[in-house]
Amino acid sequence: MTKGIATKENIIHAAFDFTSRFGLESLSIGELAKLVGMSKSGLFGHFNSKEALQMKVLDYAADNFIRNVVRPAVRAPRGIARINALASQWQKWVSSKLAGGCPIIAATVEYDDRPGKIRDHLQTLQGEMINTFARAAKIAIEEGEFKKDLDCEQFAYEFYANMMAYHVFTRLLRDRTAKQRFQTTLDQLIVKSSQTK
Amino acid sequence: MTKGIATKENIIHAAFDFTSRFGLESLSIGELAKLVGMSKSGLFGHFNSKEALQMKVLDYAADNFIRNVVRPAVRAPRGIARINALASQWQKWVSSKLAGGCPIIAATVEYDDRPGKIRDHLQTLQGEMINTFARAAKIAIEEGEFKKDLDCEQFAYEFYANMMAYHVFTRLLRDRTAKQRFQTTLDQLIVKSSQTK
Repeated sequence: MTKGIATKENIIHAAFDFTSRFGLESLSIGELAKLVGMSKSGLFGHFNSKEALQMKVLDYAADNFIRNVVRPAVRAPRGIARINALASQWQKWVSSKLAGGCPIIAATVEYDDRPGKIRDHLQTLQGEMINTFARAAKIAIEEGEFKKDLDCEQFAYEFYANMMAYHVFTRLLRDRTAKQRFQTTLDQLIVKSSQTK
Repeated sequence: MTKGIATKENIIHAAFDFTSRFGLESLSIGELAKLVGMSKSGLFGHFNSKEALQMKVLDYAADNFIRNVVRPAVRAPRGIARINALASQWQKWVSSKLAGGCPIIAATVEYDDRPGKIRDHLQTLQGEMINTFARAAKIAIEEGEFKKDLDCEQFAYEFYANMMAYHVFTRLLRDRTAKQRFQTTLDQLIVKSSQTK
C-alpha cells in the first residue's frame, strides 16, 4: 500500500466518522481539513469538491455494510440461516462500530427531497441494500424454506422497517427492550414467510 | 389575535418549513431572519437562542401531528377503526403537507447521539407518539377486538416501523408500491393482533 493510498483511506475514515456524528450536510473540506490536520488545498488534491467528498463517504459506508454485514452473512447456509445472519450482523454493526449511527440512514432522511447527485446516489445505494434482502428471501424460496408465492419485495420492505425502528429505539430512545422487539418482529416475519409443514 | 401573536406564528411556520427542507441543525436565527425579512435582533426578541428556536419548531411539528393525525383519528370509533384512522391520517399528512418530510423523523436521526436539551426533547416527543400507538392497541383490547394478551408495546414498535419504512420508500426511493406495502403491513399487523373468532 503506497503512502498516498493510506492517507486517502485515513481521510475518508475520518470523514465517515464525522458524518456519522454530525450529518452529511455539515461535512465540508474545511471541517475535514481541521480534523485531519491538513491544508484545504491538500485535501482538494484528493477530492475536488464537497460533493465528491460526500459521495466518497457514502460509498465508504456502503462498502462497510458489505464488508461487515453482507459478506459474513453469505458464509451462513443459504435460506433462513442466512437471513438471520444478515439481521444479526447488521444489528451488531449498528450497535458497536458507529459512534453516531449509520450515515446512510441519516442522509436518507436529510436528502430525501433535495434533487441532485447525492440524492440519486443514496437512492441507488438504499435500493441495492433492499434488493439484497429481497434476494435473500428468493434464495429461501429456492431452498424450499419460504413459501413459493411469497412476495419477496414485501419481505424486504418489512425487513427494512424492522431495521429502521430498531435504529431509533436503540439509539434515540435508548429503549432496553429494542433488541427483543427487533428479534420478535424478525422471528414473526420469518414464520409467516415460511412453508407450512 | 394580536399582531404580535400572528407574527410569532408565521415565524415558527417559516422555521418549520425550513427545517423540514434542510434539517434542524441548519436552522439558525440568521437564516430565519433572511427568510422572514426581519432583523436578527427582532427575532431574538421572540426566541433568545438558536436552541430555543429549535425547541419551538419541534413543538410545532408535534402539535401539527396531534392536530392533523391524532385528533381526526380520535373521531373514529374506539378500536381497530381508530388504528386504521391513525395510519391513514398520518399517511395523508406525510404525503401532502410537508415539502421536505417530517422534521421530527429527520431530527431523530440527526440528534440521536448528541446529548443535550434537543435530544431529550425529541426522546420525549417520540416516546409520546409511540405511547399513542400503544394506547390505541390497549383500547382495541378493551373493545374486545384485539387479543387480551397482546403486547401493546410490541404493537407500537411494529406500527412505528411501518411508518418509518413508508417514509423512506415514498420520499427517497419514490417507490410506487410504497402505499400498497404500507397497507399490507398494517393489515397483517391488525389481523395477527385481533381476537380469533
